[in-house]
Amino acid sequence: MLKLFYASLTCALASHIALEETGADYEAVRLDFGTREQSSPAYLAINPKGRVPALVTERGTLTESPAILAFIAQSFPAAGLAPLDDPFAFAQVQSFNSYLCSTVHVAHAHRMRAGRWADDPMAIQDMQRKVPENVGGAFDLIERSMVKGPWVMGEAYTICDPYLFTLSLWLEGDKVDVANFPKVADHMRRMADRPAVARILEVHRG
Amino acid sequence: MLKLFYASLTCALASHIALEETGADYEAVRLDFGTREQSSPAYLAINPKGRVPALVTERGTLTESPAILAFIAQSFPAAGLAPLDDPFAFAQVQSFNSYLCSTVHVAHAHRMRAGRWADDPMAIQDMQRKVPENVGGAFDLIERSMVKGPWVMGEAYTICDPYLFTLSLWLEGDKVDVANFPKVADHMRRMADRPAVARILEVHRG
Repeated sequence: MLKLFYASLTCALASHIALEETGADYEAVRLDFGTREQSSPAYLAINPKGRVPALVTERGTLTESPAILAFIAQSFPAAGLAPLDDPFAFAQVQSFNSYLCSTVHVAHAHRMRAGRWADDPMAIQDMQRKVPENVGGAFDLIERSMVKGPWVMGEAYTICDPYLFTLSLWLEGDKVDVANFPKVADHMRRMADRPAVARILEVHRG
Repeated sequence: MLKLFYASLTCALASHIALEETGADYEAVRLDFGTREQSSPAYLAINPKGRVPALVTERGTLTESPAILAFIAQSFPAAGLAPLDDPFAFAQVQSFNSYLCSTVHVAHAHRMRAGRWADDPMAIQDMQRKVPENVGGAFDLIERSMVKGPWVMGEAYTICDPYLFTLSLWLEGDKVDVANFPKVADHMRRMADRPAVARILEVHRG
């Protein structure tokens, strides 16, 4: 059985929702970032990166949200979470998720994880000050040129949707007003209405 | 025919090599970052992100290296550039490429592109100072726990290899000594010996 390691409302929420949407059996194991459980020897033995998500399978452990999300879609094709038989459409899904991972998540991380990239407290403050501009700019591009509506890829709900939803939940903390992005705001409401999303949000907020 | 937009020795090199390895016909269009051609209206109409690579196909334009690399592998299955029929093995490929994109490339980018995340010149200096530590740390993890050898995924040459090679070429500029990472150094030598790699390197350096 698949085992997902996550921490509350981190980017692992996307993989958690995707797993729940498949209807498959899986186990979810919560890490406490407050006590830095992600850096414990026990967890580093599972994922040397000391990050979440990590998905433990019968064949080994997978990390990185875009890879885990595509793996979930390919492992449970009946759930229809990605256009698996169309390389171009699949690449569009992957392009969107890669942008969230390498640009949007990174822009956001310069607020609470700025110490990854600088040591001087003044430098860290300057990086944090720029977060609303960078995260807002990325969501502006998402609004204008990426979200087709009602779901990210159009009529089909895919692995892009829980990932966008997860990063949208961070906007308020990043001091970016989602009201500036009507399609993203509508997407958040649609997501919250899905039973699988509501169940997993309750787990993360519990 | 596929058309790849690239700039010399940027991360687009990975997609360029992968295309060349397939033996397919394609056109490569060079952008001059020196004159900020990536921000020209003409290019922004092709890729609103103003970045490379961008791969123009009959059905539209794809961006983000991990997505383009997987698309190349899926579009030219005879080239054998990814384990397409094995979701777990494919996810391992994707996980590696996602790490390069979202962690290693980002760590590197804090040297020449630090202005993306801060404005204060002192902050930018502090970020640049930390680049060797961050890039070196990422390559240490790659060396210890990711590269199986002789290729990234073991005996099979995949889309992970041109991507690792591309980022390895940046090590010297980042003041990270590749000699600290014998498997990565060996990988660089093996890559340089491949005819397709030598041809594309010559194009990028020309």
